[in-house]
Amino acid sequence: MKAAILSFLRNSAGEVSGEVLGKELGISRVSIWKHIVNLRQSGYIIGASPRGYRLLSAPDLLLGCEFPELGKKLHHFHSIDSTMDTARELIESGAEEGTVVVAESQNSGRGRLGREWFSPQGGIYFTLVLKPKIAPAYAPRLNMMASVAVAKTLRRLLGVDARLKWPNDVLIEGRKVCGILAEMGAEMDVVKYVTIGVGINANFSIARYGTKVASLRDLKGEKVSRKDIFNSVVKELLRQQSLLTKGELLEEWKGLSATLNREIRIETPGGEITGKAVDIDSNGALIIREKDGSLRTAIAGDCFHP
Amino acid sequence: MKAAILSFLRNSAGEVSGEVLGKELGISRVSIWKHIVNLRQSGYIIGASPRGYRLLSAPDLLLGCEFPELGKKLHHFHSIDSTMDTARELIESGAEEGTVVVAESQNSGRGRLGREWFSPQGGIYFTLVLKPKIAPAYAPRLNMMASVAVAKTLRRLLGVDARLKWPNDVLIEGRKVCGILAEMGAEMDVVKYVTIGVGINANFSIARYGTKVASLRDLKGEKVSRKDIFNSVVKELLRQQSLLTKGELLEEWKGLSATLNREIRIETPGGEITGKAVDIDSNGALIIREKDGSLRTAIAGDCFHP
Repeated sequence: MKAAILSFLRNSAGEVSGEVLGKELGISRVSIWKHIVNLRQSGYIIGASPRGYRLLSAPDLLLGCEFPELGKKLHHFHSIDSTMDTARELIESGAEEGTVVVAESQNSGRGRLGREWFSPQGGIYFTLVLKPKIAPAYAPRLNMMASVAVAKTLRRLLGVDARLKWPNDVLIEGRKVCGILAEMGAEMDVVKYVTIGVGINANFSIARYGTKVASLRDLKGEKVSRKDIFNSVVKELLRQQSLLTKGELLEEWKGLSATLNREIRIETPGGEITGKAVDIDSNGALIIREKDGSLRTAIAGDCFHP
Repeated sequence: MKAAILSFLRNSAGEVSGEVLGKELGISRVSIWKHIVNLRQSGYIIGASPRGYRLLSAPDLLLGCEFPELGKKLHHFHSIDSTMDTARELIESGAEEGTVVVAESQNSGRGRLGREWFSPQGGIYFTLVLKPKIAPAYAPRLNMMASVAVAKTLRRLLGVDARLKWPNDVLIEGRKVCGILAEMGAEMDVVKYVTIGVGINANFSIARYGTKVASLRDLKGEKVSRKDIFNSVVKELLRQQSLLTKGELLEEWKGLSATLNREIRIETPGGEITGKAVDIDSNGALIIREKDGSLRTAIAGDCFHP
């Protein structure tokens, strides 16, 4: 209902009276008034005059009422320990596919391999729950899917040359602007659920952290629309899910890759591999040609572009 | 300490005095007495005379003090909802590799794909926590490893011709005596933990459930040692873990298979496959030759031996 009220206020040139709103939405003027109070408590500035209500400004928050298509599947938190952990708790209580946990900041955001993910206000942090009917062997493709969804969104909305570093970082001008962490719960032959975590360095500055990382604001020189980026990435992910077992996804990833066809170094659990990244296989593993011409395959590891 | 006292009592011909026990174990007579009281509360019948203590009988329970090698990693419950769920809760609280949750009965024991697993008293129900450093693609091998461990144990301890039905049932005389459920938590390229659940129809009768299932007591005509079977399967699992990525495991599975080289029917998520099971691939998928000679691969599904 709040989403509908916001939509009305946004689409009208002047004030809209409580009576008109109530009639259009099929609820009483008092109910409208209660929702207006509620919206104001959430940070919306809504003017009221004898002629009606008027939306003066909206908070820069990823609130459910901004994304009516997600509806009750969106769980918004101002601050949370980790969207990944909260998503998993929701799954244990029966959360369905398409559930999204989004937070304005995380106290203990997680990255791959238990690493910390810096999550101050101004970033975009969310976890999407999917339940694809695939074998665990297809799992690495979820990383590819997520990084493709983010890169495509940033290219389209910001006009930047977003590229992918294997396995799942999104780079702009060679600097990391987004990390992805996908986890799953599975039986041995079938995935039960997947949680895809996305952390985008959006509207805070991290220039002081060196040349390997950047925020979208650092790179663009101005604030970006967190709402538009969030909305687009979630939609891309939900749409691309059907491509998980198809070759198309691999082609998209390859087309956006910053890792292929360059000299790289990979630290894997089994040791270091140095050479030229020549391809990825159907499971998302990176194929590297070493100096002596032999081919090596890396399933997991940290990749460095020297 | 209780394990040590039990061991002393079991290995002595007659009574053992509290003084001797205390000296050997480095604790006071009063402490010995407290442990004896505790053991009696757990169901051990321990006689006491002026000459000392004597173990008269032990309860048929899979208590921690019976398995000193597992030590504090063994969590025993008389009744529990599901050893799988409890194991996962323990993992969330930091449980390490080798943690075992065992229950005398389960209220809502789980099988594959959310099915129920009948878990009355007299069966053997446990979940073992492993943290192998493998990619999720290797996961199906955990099923193979677990079924091999159970079949080898039953063959050795009971002298039965235990065989394996793909993907992970243990059969004796064509009837299912054990089910295995392995689940994992993983990032896309690396497994974080695995919970291997084993349910063995041991000392209760299920003859009335038809010819597809049986208990060890039904088949042997007498009670079996739940302690010996439990102990052996856990040890086999811990030992075999190092074989997960090796070809040896596949060979062992093939050697024990009741599915290979016979006409079968498989219900998979993608439809039904009928034909002769000719091999398994390195990921544990079953390869079937259909009537027209074409080869099909089944990653997941229910297999029927007509």
